[in-house]
Amino acid sequence: MKILIVGGHGTIGKRVAVHFEQNHEVIIGGRTKGDVLVDIAESASIQKMFDQIGKVDAILCIAGEAKWANFKELTEEDYYIGLKSKLMGQVNLVRLGQNYLNPNGSITLSTGILADDPVVKTASAAMVNGGIHSFVQAVALEMEQGIRINAVSLGVVHDAYEKYKDYFPGYNPIPTSKVINAYIRSVQGKTNGKIIRTYE
Amino acid sequence: MKILIVGGHGTIGKRVAVHFEQNHEVIIGGRTKGDVLVDIAESASIQKMFDQIGKVDAILCIAGEAKWANFKELTEEDYYIGLKSKLMGQVNLVRLGQNYLNPNGSITLSTGILADDPVVKTASAAMVNGGIHSFVQAVALEMEQGIRINAVSLGVVHDAYEKYKDYFPGYNPIPTSKVINAYIRSVQGKTNGKIIRTYE
Repeated sequence: MKILIVGGHGTIGKRVAVHFEQNHEVIIGGRTKGDVLVDIAESASIQKMFDQIGKVDAILCIAGEAKWANFKELTEEDYYIGLKSKLMGQVNLVRLGQNYLNPNGSITLSTGILADDPVVKTASAAMVNGGIHSFVQAVALEMEQGIRINAVSLGVVHDAYEKYKDYFPGYNPIPTSKVINAYIRSVQGKTNGKIIRTYE
Repeated sequence: MKILIVGGHGTIGKRVAVHFEQNHEVIIGGRTKGDVLVDIAESASIQKMFDQIGKVDAILCIAGEAKWANFKELTEEDYYIGLKSKLMGQVNLVRLGQNYLNPNGSITLSTGILADDPVVKTASAAMVNGGIHSFVQAVALEMEQGIRINAVSLGVVHDAYEKYKDYFPGYNPIPTSKVINAYIRSVQGKTNGKIIRTYE
């Protein structure tokens, strides 16, 4: 398969990329480095990326940001960081990417446990994750030519546990093998419209 | 109690308003008519409303729109209709409204079954509903002075069943009494951070 991994140089993305590179042609998309440069917060940048790489069999998005802050401190503009990047960035990747997928291809978006089980300071981050969960289920009803779409929703991954553990007291770190498996299930399984929750 | 119902002249809002008016002081907010005019898609309009009415004991939002269309036809701009109105409109109502609630007051937002169980043409509408579900759970962790926040998520209500039934084949219409009860649970119960799902 020809697999595009947007965010393939990130903490999670690089682990997933190393796995798929064993048996597939992987194209890494990134904001500052990669086989192709892309900023998902700009739909023109997404279109330019697809113009460069052409058709693929799978699109994985392991990218997107949102502002973390106390609810009382989050401004209206702060919310738009997440809305433009992790929410509409992923929506636009599907909207534009559907035209660059071969039949029976797949799209895998990334969210997180905050959608279901938020913690303090995540009003914006939880919101965009929850939005993607419902979006994926809705869009799956309308995909054509056997194209599937899923979201991988992860807990606090082992590789980022030290950075985030104070925000997530008592949450179990997710081993890298389970993280990779979640993406494998989406790309190589037949699941469609599924939120692949990997929280333990 | 002094209760603000934004969207209190709408299909659902007017039923809820009639109930609470029996025993409470109800202020109806609406875009074109009401005790106070407000367009939730504009945060300045929300602030102006609160400047006019002062402190309240409960805020209900039964308003907000999103574009319904086939996924292939939804433009990036189309998504922003829902993001600015039903999503950020409700977020801004909480963000600004928290300063106008008396201690132990409550905020009740409105979503719908699409968040959990979407149908065709609802990629945008489902997304904003799902976003609010996660937002409510996150914000509930940070509310102060006993202020609570919940969302009422309704199926296809009886009053709008004829209009929407072709989108929702086999879905059961929700009787008005159950709709009203969902809002009563949020306003008069002790629940916080709950999605009050009323789908049958």
